[in-house]
Amino acid sequence: MKRMLSSFVAMFVVCIYSVAVAADPLPSWNDGPPKTAILEFVAAVTVESGVDYVEPAERIATFDNDGTLWVEFPMYTQVLFIFDRVKQLAPQHPEWKTKQPFKALLEGDMKTVGASGEKGILEMGMATHSGMTAVEFEKTVSAWLATHKQPRFKRLYTECVYQPQLELLAYLRANSFKTFIVSGGGIAFMRPMSEKTYGIPPEQVVGSSVGTEFQIKDGKPVLVRMPKIDFVNDKAGKPVGIYQHIGRRPILAFGNSDSDVQMIQYTTVGEGRRLGLFVHHTDAEREYAYDRASHVGTLDKALDQADANGWIIVDMKKDWKHIFPPAE
Amino acid sequence: MKRMLSSFVAMFVVCIYSVAVAADPLPSWNDGPPKTAILEFVAAVTVESGVDYVEPAERIATFDNDGTLWVEFPMYTQVLFIFDRVKQLAPQHPEWKTKQPFKALLEGDMKTVGASGEKGILEMGMATHSGMTAVEFEKTVSAWLATHKQPRFKRLYTECVYQPQLELLAYLRANSFKTFIVSGGGIAFMRPMSEKTYGIPPEQVVGSSVGTEFQIKDGKPVLVRMPKIDFVNDKAGKPVGIYQHIGRRPILAFGNSDSDVQMIQYTTVGEGRRLGLFVHHTDAEREYAYDRASHVGTLDKALDQADANGWIIVDMKKDWKHIFPPAE
Repeated sequence: MKRMLSSFVAMFVVCIYSVAVAADPLPSWNDGPPKTAILEFVAAVTVESGVDYVEPAERIATFDNDGTLWVEFPMYTQVLFIFDRVKQLAPQHPEWKTKQPFKALLEGDMKTVGASGEKGILEMGMATHSGMTAVEFEKTVSAWLATHKQPRFKRLYTECVYQPQLELLAYLRANSFKTFIVSGGGIAFMRPMSEKTYGIPPEQVVGSSVGTEFQIKDGKPVLVRMPKIDFVNDKAGKPVGIYQHIGRRPILAFGNSDSDVQMIQYTTVGEGRRLGLFVHHTDAEREYAYDRASHVGTLDKALDQADANGWIIVDMKKDWKHIFPPAE
Repeated sequence: MKRMLSSFVAMFVVCIYSVAVAADPLPSWNDGPPKTAILEFVAAVTVESGVDYVEPAERIATFDNDGTLWVEFPMYTQVLFIFDRVKQLAPQHPEWKTKQPFKALLEGDMKTVGASGEKGILEMGMATHSGMTAVEFEKTVSAWLATHKQPRFKRLYTECVYQPQLELLAYLRANSFKTFIVSGGGIAFMRPMSEKTYGIPPEQVVGSSVGTEFQIKDGKPVLVRMPKIDFVNDKAGKPVGIYQHIGRRPILAFGNSDSDVQMIQYTTVGEGRRLGLFVHHTDAEREYAYDRASHVGTLDKALDQADANGWIIVDMKKDWKHIFPPAE
């Protein structure tokens, strides 16, 4: 009887162990080369006896945000925020009635807004992202994100995040990686949502910024956001942002557009084992399909250069079992 | 016998418990108001049932570096590094033989160097901190720090760090604080030593920086340091650096000079319980004594404003039992 019991216990232990080993850390990723590449990479850099072992402190992983962690189509979320803010603030700015591209936006003439290009968006961005304290801006962003929904999916923008990426972030952190956002988006626009949505704290968000001044207002020290660009964390700016902010070269970087090429280059030319990945938006049915000719998230040069550089192209339609987290 | 044994076990448990409770987390701090203020503050923000409880994620502590964590007298370490680098690089810069303040430095005319002021130092700083890749600069700094000694104490600069502060950093981290350096010094000068010396990883160092460019050199992507100021993380720049880099307001900040006043103001006016502290260098025998009229680490306005604001002035002579870690 005693012997039977002891062999039962042994079996039970084996069983538990098998379940633990078999548990898939990336259940929303279909089997295929990208999933295999990720699992093999993480195993390689975390096994202490392995040739590719990386100290936990050096396990830096950087993720683009728009189109890599959350939906960016048909328009970047922050641009939609800018449009809304221009409309909300218009009563305090009668001059916008005659000033382009503000005038066009207020009249619903989106063709003219579009024609104003990056310069026009930037001008409206400055007008809506500066002239207030840091605390006030954070409150405005949080309130907007808590109430505005993505038009097609009818969910908050913070719910239009990719479930496979949430699993990957958690899996990396469980393997002692430090996960960062490195985005062309505004650092102060992402920080109010990054911790709750992705588990990435504000201090691990790297983004574009406006100049900020320390001022004493009514006897109280405040930080005031100024109408001037401080740093553009995009394209060749991404490795610079990583250097200034993180001070270490990532060993894994994940993007989705040509704006991420330099970050992926900088990451993958580092010594030792590295992994660079791009999301390819190929799923018009469940999300969107766009790449070389898209007005957002253009993915063109990266597609051409991926093979030669060993960068992984993740095919959303083929490689992702689920796109979004289940509705609450 | 069984009863005796069980009461022995109980006694043993009580004993272990008392030892654990009695263990002083700050053995190099003498009893006195600063030590009490620190212990009470940490207890207040970490007891979950308390009115002053702060979530671990929000336990941000920022420390100035020069004069707060390591010796800055008779001259800031980075300035001594600049002087050495000018001398080392002089053969490649024949023009320095006739250009001030380079000429004076090369001739050992420190009076003229001093008279060139901040502008002169900055010019030599630019000449020695730019024109190389980020990786090259890091190697140069690491090599210098590994070989140059503080003239009075005859120890590496990284050994001229304050033992009481090392204990405080460890104590804060043991209480789930995230510890940051927020210094006027160069971010790329501090990062090579911060992790090993203070347990503060590069991504938690905030400092002054030069502009940096992403370039492709010989087919390889590199970051090149440019001869222009990117950000000055000093005085009113410190709260700005904290905002851009950390994105949260610290609950504890520690400085030693008037350059830290704005950081301490920004920290201590936040809602909830906060703690602001200054090291006062009062110990000519064991370290140095300087304050209001000093050419480095001027502590003047902060001394006048401390009482009214509840800032703690730490008297090095009185409050610190040991200054440096024991010699190895």
